[in-house]
Amino acid sequence: MRIDVLLTPAEAGARSLSGRVVAVIDVLRATSTIVEAVANGARAILPAADVEDAMRLARTHGRDNVLLCGERRSLKIDGLDLGNSPLEFTSEAVADKLVVMTTTNGTRALIAGEAADRCLVASYLNESAVAEALAAAAQPITLVCAGRRDRFSLDDALCAGSLLRSLRTRLSERVRLNDAARAVLALERRYRARLESVIRRTAAARQIAAAGLAADIDYCLTRDRHRVVPVMSDRQILRAV
Amino acid sequence: MRIDVLLTPAEAGARSLSGRVVAVIDVLRATSTIVEAVANGARAILPAADVEDAMRLARTHGRDNVLLCGERRSLKIDGLDLGNSPLEFTSEAVADKLVVMTTTNGTRALIAGEAADRCLVASYLNESAVAEALAAAAQPITLVCAGRRDRFSLDDALCAGSLLRSLRTRLSERVRLNDAARAVLALERRYRARLESVIRRTAAARQIAAAGLAADIDYCLTRDRHRVVPVMSDRQILRAV
Repeated sequence: MRIDVLLTPAEAGARSLSGRVVAVIDVLRATSTIVEAVANGARAILPAADVEDAMRLARTHGRDNVLLCGERRSLKIDGLDLGNSPLEFTSEAVADKLVVMTTTNGTRALIAGEAADRCLVASYLNESAVAEALAAAAQPITLVCAGRRDRFSLDDALCAGSLLRSLRTRLSERVRLNDAARAVLALERRYRARLESVIRRTAAARQIAAAGLAADIDYCLTRDRHRVVPVMSDRQILRAV
Repeated sequence: MRIDVLLTPAEAGARSLSGRVVAVIDVLRATSTIVEAVANGARAILPAADVEDAMRLARTHGRDNVLLCGERRSLKIDGLDLGNSPLEFTSEAVADKLVVMTTTNGTRALIAGEAADRCLVASYLNESAVAEALAAAAQPITLVCAGRRDRFSLDDALCAGSLLRSLRTRLSERVRLNDAARAVLALERRYRARLESVIRRTAAARQIAAAGLAADIDYCLTRDRHRVVPVMSDRQILRAV
């Protein structure tokens, strides 16, 4: 079994994900929020490239049927219904809703992931459920970190390392790893015992804390809060498990 | 003092390096070979984007005055004078020569580095000399890893971690690091005691070994063989120290 990690979506390159099963990771906060929304009964999530694209999707589906969500520099965009805080995506807010979401880095990674045979949405919140789904896959696996403005982000790398460790315990065959997969395993091992304090010092966490949303960080680091596996296909994210 | 690490040249982005001092790292093998060539008396190194560009540079400077060097998939390109093995770049071969060099990943990183105020060429072979030059810089510092086909390469990350550790011991002021800088320090610390065996398992080293050039790997991991600091400016690399 071949397992690769990509540290940013830019590492994906043209067609390199076809024939693979991908899990996309944007811990702070897009994929954590998507997992939360799907777990709380959202009908589907539609990732949008930007606010204009989000507005267009809302018009297509009928503005009243849609929750428009998104952030820029961690804050809710004016005129939208919700930001990108998982704590906002309660059952009351999202059950049976179509959620259109635009985020800075997460959407780009999800769109890159669409080139794969199957694209799962991963976070600490659903780590074990994703690991089980990946362990059942017949194709080679790629974990795609969203990163931050096309650069390495330590929170995503640590979550990829944690997911990879969890996945390996579920595989009996020999696993071949690329350089980045070996690196995230080493980083996860090094920082496991003090994950919260390490992640709080990342650029992503500092921006979220500066916006007054530090509670989001703790929430996004909770392991296995949900058993759901959201799957992205045809620009829609639906609950698979 | 702000110190950033970029894990691939793609992380640089437009203009992000201006106002900075950069050190470019392609351990296996471009920057190691450049350091070796400069240490052994090459008059200048001219990095070329591809073979066509290399041939054009050779015509401009006179084919007889130029050593044409380059590799694709670790092997010397047919019709060129040398490959990209540091062991070929002896004093006998390179003294007073103009060296035109095209390599897969190194050239791209060097060209990205040219956007900086000053662009140094770093490797294990000249680690301490580069650390000293960087410690004397007034501007913020960026270490640019060449990576491998726009993806993370563990050998470059470990060399960046080693160089950063060496640099920090020379700085008295507080240092602010980006996520990737923290990651390479953690990786260097984790793998320091068994660097050779870890690097031999990287994708870059495996390709070099498969080409029958395993001796290059050991050579490129030798710390502080040379005191030179090559500097890139106007598409030429000259000896600064």
